[in-house]
Amino acid sequence: MCPPALIPFKPRNPKTRLSAVLSQEEREQFARVMLEDVKAAAKDAMCSPVLVCSELFDSEDVQVTILDTDLNGTLNAILPQSVTDCLIIMADLPLADAGSIRRVISTKKDMAIVPGRGGGTNVIYVREPTKFHVDYYGTSFLKHMKIAEEAGLSVDVIDSFRLHTDIDEVEDLAELLIHGTGKSREYLEGLGFSLSVEKGRVGVVRKR
Amino acid sequence: MCPPALIPFKPRNPKTRLSAVLSQEEREQFARVMLEDVKAAAKDAMCSPVLVCSELFDSEDVQVTILDTDLNGTLNAILPQSVTDCLIIMADLPLADAGSIRRVISTKKDMAIVPGRGGGTNVIYVREPTKFHVDYYGTSFLKHMKIAEEAGLSVDVIDSFRLHTDIDEVEDLAELLIHGTGKSREYLEGLGFSLSVEKGRVGVVRKR
Repeated sequence: MCPPALIPFKPRNPKTRLSAVLSQEEREQFARVMLEDVKAAAKDAMCSPVLVCSELFDSEDVQVTILDTDLNGTLNAILPQSVTDCLIIMADLPLADAGSIRRVISTKKDMAIVPGRGGGTNVIYVREPTKFHVDYYGTSFLKHMKIAEEAGLSVDVIDSFRLHTDIDEVEDLAELLIHGTGKSREYLEGLGFSLSVEKGRVGVVRKR
Repeated sequence: MCPPALIPFKPRNPKTRLSAVLSQEEREQFARVMLEDVKAAAKDAMCSPVLVCSELFDSEDVQVTILDTDLNGTLNAILPQSVTDCLIIMADLPLADAGSIRRVISTKKDMAIVPGRGGGTNVIYVREPTKFHVDYYGTSFLKHMKIAEEAGLSVDVIDSFRLHTDIDEVEDLAELLIHGTGKSREYLEGLGFSLSVEKGRVGVVRKR
């Protein structure tokens, strides 16, 4: 009853689409605080975080290193060895909370998926990981649904905006300032970010 | 146990941010099929649709006309007269389904809100409408949370991406093609829209 939560993580030069508003050092720090929020939510939901990293970095977490920076290959080497159920959750979901993750891992089906915005896959939970493999990038949500179908696995698509909202673009930062409750929001506010409303559209501004 | 579902609707020249890919006539038709999907979901969840329209239009639905095109003023004239609980749901939520709406109306709190992307408010459910008033536009989610607090009403923020995803921009059409199951998706596909993946990002293309 304490499944591992595999969390893919890129410590160096992450989140390049935020380069217009954050320096590389800030992006690396921001990625780490988002990871902290995801880890805290996973732990609150009784999952054990295991980082799946593009390179080793200074942390006390259990880490698995990605071989040849191939996320799919690495995860697909881990899954067949799993003896328990398994959660795979992205590190850029700072709105994740215990409630949303619990809804995922308490599915009655063989597995559960939370789609990301734009057809991605933000969270996968699979009861018998040996029967499943991942195929991230592009419209991975549709690919994962197909893989599950071909493997005869029933799937719950979990309806959560907290786990649906991955932080990639500058406009996504507004979601974090509106709905965040953890360290990532604090970090952004500490850098001088706040909400702005122009012509009825909500965005962010940074005071320097 | 059959609350009205007030659905604000603009029949003429709606969804102007989709003008790059849809003509005015197509946008008007698209808005109507999205409305059909929202109405169907509301009915499946045992709610009775009531359109709140900027002008009368040809339909068999119960309609209330917005005075001076002021949505807030019109809703705030209706709410104090409500003798039952009440749902207010936007017409551009074609991913809405009975399950997500049921989660809203089965809240144990005084009211429930589903935030839209960018700080908007997509759905409000209030048990005693005489105690609440609306203030749409801008970061209305934060405004509605504050109005509830000042009125002493407890609020459930419902975590649903199906009700969080309002269709405003061209990129939102991808969400509909991926997750839609109703008439709006069919309508888009009939116009020649399909998913495209370029440089790992998912969008839509239209074959003419």
